Amino acid sequence: MGQSRAFSRREFARWAASVGVVTEAALAQRSMPGGPPPPDAVMINANENPLGPCAEALEAMAGALKRGGRYSFFEPMELRRLMSEQEGVGLDHVQVFAGSSDPLHRVVLAFCGPGRSYVTADPAYESGDGPAEFRGAAIHRVPLTKEYAHDVREMLKRAGEAAGVFYVCNPNNPTGTLTPREEIEYLVANKPAGSVVLVDEAYIHFSGAQSCVDMVAAGKDVVVLKTFSKIYGMAGLRSGVAMGRPDLLAKIAPYATMFLPCTGLAGAIASLKAKGVVAERRRYLKEVREDVFSWMTGEGYRFVPSVSNKFMVDVGRPGREVMAAMAKEKVYIGRSWPSWPQHVRVSIGTREEMELFKGAFARVMG
Amino acid sequence: MGQSRAFSRREFARWAASVGVVTEAALAQRSMPGGPPPPDAVMINANENPLGPCAEALEAMAGALKRGGRYSFFEPMELRRLMSEQEGVGLDHVQVFAGSSDPLHRVVLAFCGPGRSYVTADPAYESGDGPAEFRGAAIHRVPLTKEYAHDVREMLKRAGEAAGVFYVCNPNNPTGTLTPREEIEYLVANKPAGSVVLVDEAYIHFSGAQSCVDMVAAGKDVVVLKTFSKIYGMAGLRSGVAMGRPDLLAKIAPYATMFLPCTGLAGAIASLKAKGVVAERRRYLKEVREDVFSWMTGEGYRFVPSVSNKFMVDVGRPGREVMAAMAKEKVYIGRSWPSWPQHVRVSIGTREEMELFKGAFARVMG
Repeated sequence: MGQSRAFSRREFARWAASVGVVTEAALAQRSMPGGPPPPDAVMINANENPLGPCAEALEAMAGALKRGGRYSFFEPMELRRLMSEQEGVGLDHVQVFAGSSDPLHRVVLAFCGPGRSYVTADPAYESGDGPAEFRGAAIHRVPLTKEYAHDVREMLKRAGEAAGVFYVCNPNNPTGTLTPREEIEYLVANKPAGSVVLVDEAYIHFSGAQSCVDMVAAGKDVVVLKTFSKIYGMAGLRSGVAMGRPDLLAKIAPYATMFLPCTGLAGAIASLKAKGVVAERRRYLKEVREDVFSWMTGEGYRFVPSVSNKFMVDVGRPGREVMAAMAKEKVYIGRSWPSWPQHVRVSIGTREEMELFKGAFARVMG
Repeated sequence: MGQSRAFSRREFARWAASVGVVTEAALAQRSMPGGPPPPDAVMINANENPLGPCAEALEAMAGALKRGGRYSFFEPMELRRLMSEQEGVGLDHVQVFAGSSDPLHRVVLAFCGPGRSYVTADPAYESGDGPAEFRGAAIHRVPLTKEYAHDVREMLKRAGEAAGVFYVCNPNNPTGTLTPREEIEYLVANKPAGSVVLVDEAYIHFSGAQSCVDMVAAGKDVVVLKTFSKIYGMAGLRSGVAMGRPDLLAKIAPYATMFLPCTGLAGAIASLKAKGVVAERRRYLKEVREDVFSWMTGEGYRFVPSVSNKFMVDVGRPGREVMAAMAKEKVYIGRSWPSWPQHVRVSIGTREEMELFKGAFARVMG
């Protein structure tokens, strides 16, 4: 019980303040200038799936509501078991959470600190930056390659021996681009001892790319995150998993009681049992995406080709201005990144929604 | 970025391991010997509300499911606003969480540590023990008075000047007994500077007792927890709030992204807007409780009179044996506490369920 294990009240407050930056309110503020959007707005700003939960999940969750007075004691185990079977990793390699943001933060808190840096892409999903800052870890933001992949050689070089976490979102958010499998293998094989590679596969279903879960099964220093927020359309319902060796998962074990929402659990279990959902949704979103890309190419707009449910558009002027102008057209698109200030992120909506996007975008750009 | 603010990987692992003790799996294991109960079992082991969510909440949550593909950006603000209005505290004095366990842990983590002890009752709800142990804080477990109230004078004496958190669950879990308002006022007035009184009002609606939220509004060093798990019957759906001065709430601010489940948010908002739910449910549970107490008194069983949705029964033998024997009768009752090994906790079910309890209990005890 020595002082060494303590963090002071002030430190805790700093931690809370620094890492609380990415809250729902902050995101809403950033993405939705002028408050709540009108009910008929096209919402393609937050990488949500416009199809929502699948029919099987909706039915299961409707049933769960009626039993909502009861704690979900056994459902987390059922979800772990299903993931374990479907992903081919041991049951003790799977932990469930209310989404994948929670374990993302926990991994950074557990493995980063002074002398153990957080190594990420640029542009990348920034959720891990806050916990890295709190832990006093250096943050290395390494620009994507010309092919918009993670530049793993440069990431290794920048980190040197002092790495804590290499964060690889694959496909990347916001660009929707893939990092080749062999590059991730190179990263895992050449990273310094004691560090982990955190592979965020939130969007992998859209791409059809190979998962890195087999690296978890092979006992590598890899943690893979999966979420039900994206292809399964359950962003608001909160369910996700972290997969890793038991000794790695122990380090991100819950500090709290881990009571998880019964609806998210029921929906996740039903989604995994449903047939064809992933393939059907991947096909639909791909068709819509390719149609938008054809249109944009025809109109001469510049964008980064994506295999995910969002893409970056080069608008040739401050992205904020385009976001605001689009919002006036009742089409809410995503934000810019500091290193790419003239790009905006656009999520893929339904076919009908993307027709409205096209019209609004042409008016705003034209 | 000095070493002082860091906690080591090993410390983090110890923290995780120590405070992860109270997980859903551990609770399930403890409360349900022999795995999942049969579908027709009477579940009066976890202080759940057998009535489940109210009709208004069910309807709102059914609607939320369909929008479940969207993140809940604005609902947390709506819930904060409603709580603020109904409880008479400023909007900046209310923070929402996925249940009240999360802020309970955060308060202990933020205010306890070496030289800042965790002071609680015995028996009490033990959820705060884990984070207190992780922080290296002394834990003072102070027996209830003969009237089963918190012994606030003894709590103050035991803590001395080195207190971090005084935890007062009112009415208490597991005894269902109240601590008089003036005793809590005495505690708040006489506690050492820098400490907080954490008033857990999870069960207060059942009792009709006065809330301590007015102490929050008056700027005292008090944090009040409320949950939608109990009177509102939403244990599985995860919604709760912490109320305190903004400077206290800042110390328990989220370290993660605070994406909250849309169902829990929608159900909580609808529950607060619904008329008569609290009064009706309080009356119903009270009628059932008083009927059980009449029967037990008539049969000569000893119990602690409760004003909540659970009560402690003195079974005059190891409580574990009675729990196991009751489970064989398909009636799952709650556990014993180390300091009260011959008592078991029984939650109040429906009238029909408590008839089954009576029959099974008579057979087991008889």
